Amino acid sequence: MATAGDHVIPLFISQCRECRFCKSPKTNQCDKGWVNTGRHNAMAPLESRLTCRGKKVLQFCGTSTFSEYTVVNQMAVAKIDPAAPLDKVCLIGCGICTGYGAAVNTAKVEPDSTCAVFGLGAVGLAAVMGCKAAGAKMIIAVDINPEKSEKAKDHSNPISQVMFDGGVDFSLECVGKAAVMRSALESCVKGWGVSVIVGLNVMEDISARPLMLIAGRTWKGSAFGGFKGKDGVAKMVEAYMDKKLKVDEFITHNMTLDQVNDAIELMKHGKCIRTVLNVSPK
Amino acid sequence: MATAGDHVIPLFISQCRECRFCKSPKTNQCDKGWVNTGRHNAMAPLESRLTCRGKKVLQFCGTSTFSEYTVVNQMAVAKIDPAAPLDKVCLIGCGICTGYGAAVNTAKVEPDSTCAVFGLGAVGLAAVMGCKAAGAKMIIAVDINPEKSEKAKDHSNPISQVMFDGGVDFSLECVGKAAVMRSALESCVKGWGVSVIVGLNVMEDISARPLMLIAGRTWKGSAFGGFKGKDGVAKMVEAYMDKKLKVDEFITHNMTLDQVNDAIELMKHGKCIRTVLNVSPK
Repeated sequence: MATAGDHVIPLFISQCRECRFCKSPKTNQCDKGWVNTGRHNAMAPLESRLTCRGKKVLQFCGTSTFSEYTVVNQMAVAKIDPAAPLDKVCLIGCGICTGYGAAVNTAKVEPDSTCAVFGLGAVGLAAVMGCKAAGAKMIIAVDINPEKSEKAKDHSNPISQVMFDGGVDFSLECVGKAAVMRSALESCVKGWGVSVIVGLNVMEDISARPLMLIAGRTWKGSAFGGFKGKDGVAKMVEAYMDKKLKVDEFITHNMTLDQVNDAIELMKHGKCIRTVLNVSPK
Repeated sequence: MATAGDHVIPLFISQCRECRFCKSPKTNQCDKGWVNTGRHNAMAPLESRLTCRGKKVLQFCGTSTFSEYTVVNQMAVAKIDPAAPLDKVCLIGCGICTGYGAAVNTAKVEPDSTCAVFGLGAVGLAAVMGCKAAGAKMIIAVDINPEKSEKAKDHSNPISQVMFDGGVDFSLECVGKAAVMRSALESCVKGWGVSVIVGLNVMEDISARPLMLIAGRTWKGSAFGGFKGKDGVAKMVEAYMDKKLKVDEFITHNMTLDQVNDAIELMKHGKCIRTVLNVSPK
């Protein structure tokens, strides 16, 4: 458990270590956590301890990290190496684990496999890293924004030499659009293709032809890359400190907290990968 | 390879033993086989060798077993124990493998798990057998036809005592309706629930909320229960001969070939589990 003075990263999926989900090696879906269970997040109850100008405010994703101060349940913070630079490893608390883990933990990408990653934001680029770390022999990165695809292009393997051979072994949807989720599933090979939904979408249903699955494809989803929050974040920070994980490369902008709306505009227009906000207490 | 005089069961998914799908232990989706690949079945080319009253006819599912004679490629017949009663083990060539294997091979039902089977035709009842064989501690069988549910009911575990506990570990859709496929997925527990589509549906898309998968559920499909045709059928016939697999219990009616339309009517109205047609050459 974290104590006063520890360096921590807030978790939007808690790890209570006590529920049957935390106790199972199969999942990171802590029963105390997250919105999709239909319950309030552990740190987003109506009796929130946060106020802004005297008015009570609730917490976004139970973390509210666009803030100089926050109150977070201990089950929703990961204690990390105090030597790790906070203005870098903060990214491990969301997009990097989400994409990397979706490849490694959820898809369970195999050595010498072929992969396709749809969407080249931070999550998609982290998924590409995960595919590479897992030993994929070919990774096809797909985005409609040509500026982003430059970052992912592997010039030693031009797409024109690619032999799709019935589809890829693994596909990862890192966009959050139902149409792309369908395309990602359909881009998998029959028999053993695995497609993972990583992008979040609460507005649309996914759909597909049943035969896509009956012919042997598997459709999965991934939240926070399947990493159990406390354990996974600490491990990924360690990997970064050991220079086994890229993080700095994801940071295209540094801004201050009062520029938060500008940062969100950059994101909306695909002009950044990740912007780090300096939110240190004054 | 089968030779003259062997007893065989025709396969609607071939096993050529040469393609990359046959060579992979992960799948039964022989590349020479089945309609969902977008290719003609190995035995359903336009140059069919079958005629009826002088007119060329194609083969249903590459087998055309509503017939006294047929022509089937050797890659689409499973050689079986000649002592096995053909009027019983013929069922192993479709519904029994499909349901049983969906539980054992595709869902990979685990000991002490909870399962739900939707639809109690031959496929669904075979899925119940598969769940039981895999060691499930509870199997919930769901059908809208009360006559069928009687066959599946386990009176030692009334449904009122069932603690759903967030959903079952494994669900199997053995109906072939998109709405039931969605329900089966939604009936699984978050974190590790696996839902398998077994019922065939080529008319409707499946749909679901993406969060169903993102929260850790897996959506799969199964064709012929994931059994490689030749190997699986021979093994299942052996299990029947060793009294480890029920088959006789599935046969509610025996009819002759000229009653085939009556048999299909029985099926349509849910009045049979399986009807065996006597199609011996006169």
